[in-house]
Amino acid sequence: MSRVIPTLAAVGPLDADAMGRASAHLDALTKPPGSLGRLEDLAMWLAGVTGRVAAPVDRPVVVVAAADHGVALTRGVSAYPRDVTAQMVGNFLAGGAAISVLAAAADADVVVIDAGVASPIALIEAAERTRFVAAPVAAGTRDMTEGPAMTSDEVERALDLGYETAAREIIGGANVIAVGEMGIGNTTAASAIVAAITGRPVHEVTGRGTGVDQAGWQRKVAAVSSALEVNRLPSDDPLAVLAAVGGLEIAALVGVIAAAVGSSVPLVLDGFITSAAALIACELNPAVAKRLLAAHRSTEPGHTVVLERLGLRPLLDLDLRLGEGTGAALALRLLDAATRVRDGMATFESAGVSGPGGDLADSSAPPAAEAARATLRR
Amino acid sequence: MSRVIPTLAAVGPLDADAMGRASAHLDALTKPPGSLGRLEDLAMWLAGVTGRVAAPVDRPVVVVAAADHGVALTRGVSAYPRDVTAQMVGNFLAGGAAISVLAAAADADVVVIDAGVASPIALIEAAERTRFVAAPVAAGTRDMTEGPAMTSDEVERALDLGYETAAREIIGGANVIAVGEMGIGNTTAASAIVAAITGRPVHEVTGRGTGVDQAGWQRKVAAVSSALEVNRLPSDDPLAVLAAVGGLEIAALVGVIAAAVGSSVPLVLDGFITSAAALIACELNPAVAKRLLAAHRSTEPGHTVVLERLGLRPLLDLDLRLGEGTGAALALRLLDAATRVRDGMATFESAGVSGPGGDLADSSAPPAAEAARATLRR
Repeated sequence: MSRVIPTLAAVGPLDADAMGRASAHLDALTKPPGSLGRLEDLAMWLAGVTGRVAAPVDRPVVVVAAADHGVALTRGVSAYPRDVTAQMVGNFLAGGAAISVLAAAADADVVVIDAGVASPIALIEAAERTRFVAAPVAAGTRDMTEGPAMTSDEVERALDLGYETAAREIIGGANVIAVGEMGIGNTTAASAIVAAITGRPVHEVTGRGTGVDQAGWQRKVAAVSSALEVNRLPSDDPLAVLAAVGGLEIAALVGVIAAAVGSSVPLVLDGFITSAAALIACELNPAVAKRLLAAHRSTEPGHTVVLERLGLRPLLDLDLRLGEGTGAALALRLLDAATRVRDGMATFESAGVSGPGGDLADSSAPPAAEAARATLRR
Repeated sequence: MSRVIPTLAAVGPLDADAMGRASAHLDALTKPPGSLGRLEDLAMWLAGVTGRVAAPVDRPVVVVAAADHGVALTRGVSAYPRDVTAQMVGNFLAGGAAISVLAAAADADVVVIDAGVASPIALIEAAERTRFVAAPVAAGTRDMTEGPAMTSDEVERALDLGYETAAREIIGGANVIAVGEMGIGNTTAASAIVAAITGRPVHEVTGRGTGVDQAGWQRKVAAVSSALEVNRLPSDDPLAVLAAVGGLEIAALVGVIAAAVGSSVPLVLDGFITSAAALIACELNPAVAKRLLAAHRSTEPGHTVVLERLGLRPLLDLDLRLGEGTGAALALRLLDAATRVRDGMATFESAGVSGPGGDLADSSAPPAAEAARATLRR
């Protein structure tokens, strides 16, 4: 059996002790307690995931998994032809894609996994800080509307591919992993996963993807409905759902997530498809969710459904609907900002700044509201 | 008369031609049209403000104006003592404040203006990339609940101080200006400005600031109500409102905004107080609003009121309530990301990637939905 399943099963709760120490540290810095909002939450989360108050995130890696989908060939679910998956992988490697420039902006490496791209990928010299893992499990999935998209053996190989790729990066020094994907038709697969697991109506979890029109949307809804009917899925077997209506890149992403959470490395999700992979991982062990950062809320309606199910509040809301890991790369910059606040700011004591109520505050100072009341009583 | 007023009055609409060219350029890049959402909006906005499709934002400066407020001494509106304004200015100069580390993260210089700090500022050698303009107009404002906080002469000097400081930075090469502020009691002044200009009830535009409790909040509401009653303000004279219930740092920020918009330099607002300054500027000329970027939505209820009034949708929503320019500094990183997308991505043509419908797309390609319909008709 794949190492992915036992790794996910072994994941425990966040380190409450480290989070408590992080909280005390943040409250000693020269700002009202909690006034940096979600930046402070990020610093706490990092402590909870890693067990270290000062965990660095200076070696980020964006892992982008790519694969094709049988359903895209047969059901007209995408505005783009299938070849675009391979063409965009070529673009990732050449450094010309959105994720290429946004990863560079976040000072992150990019690792592209071909988990099952059907068309030939133009092999060129990869751009700086870009690596390619060419290990396709199959030439795309089978059409999910006619039976399972993958065999359980294919799923296992794709899980392991993602796991091993991420594990190699972590051994190599990566201290935060962001995930992204590419695959013409993969919002259809993600919608099917979300509908199968949450039981929500198909039309509520199906969106326009990268830009289909109303007729295209209706074809997506019909394809997902057919797939769910044909495969007769039990909602309580996430791996069966993954095999039946998922994708090779989605399975690889489950493996990437497992490697990160199993190594106490922070994991940054991107949009709808990466969150569908996270949903599979969290169905296997709900404790996984707390180790995931939702980078942004995409415009796909199914994404909001997954985020609610996982109890994740996205960091950004920028109307992104590209995928590739673009939102995750943007979130890496905020994560970096959170660590700079944590590591670079003066304390009330070191800076000689008065705390609430006028006393020189220290880390044992009462919260602001308490202190303000104390001032009043004088 | 100050140069600020005629400069604001002369501001015209965004450059529609440059925005059109920016839009065509963005649609030629290897991504579905519009799929990078607000990053694309930012690139368009930069073109509209500067008149250039490829306007750089690689020389950002955060201008932080500081001053004290008479009302903070008399009405108990803050959880912190008045001395904290001067202490925090010292912390900005020493590089230990949140804005210090977040500006560094955004590769931005910090310029601190003492527009009217009442307590002595500890003079030290300023941190790297940090400059200090010590030109206090007065030792804080007078108590707004007993009459105008400033004379019209003081307002004019503070406007000019901000204007000249920003103009100097722009002449020195700054190509984007972010604004921030520090001043114990200045959320009370901002609430009074917003209530006076919008006519909204005081309790709807007054929040907890950096952390007062319920009794403190009630004191703030009472102070703002008194100030509005005592000063009998005409809602259609923004400079009279500024003088009566504003602050020296808020007036300086109006000057900073004028210098930026008057020079076609993008201006990034921070939270509630900087937005109250923007409200004054936009009452003088509504065309100014389109040249402002709202970095984030703070937790102050009055901030949302101002954003609605100005028609600005904030970029981030991170529960920040610190000020100093911290949210603006974070937004600078997204603005930088937008320019990297604009400048660094391949086009469909250069990368050999098929567009919607399967044709090799170019900048004259139809929108995705149109193309998808065309595919269907084949």
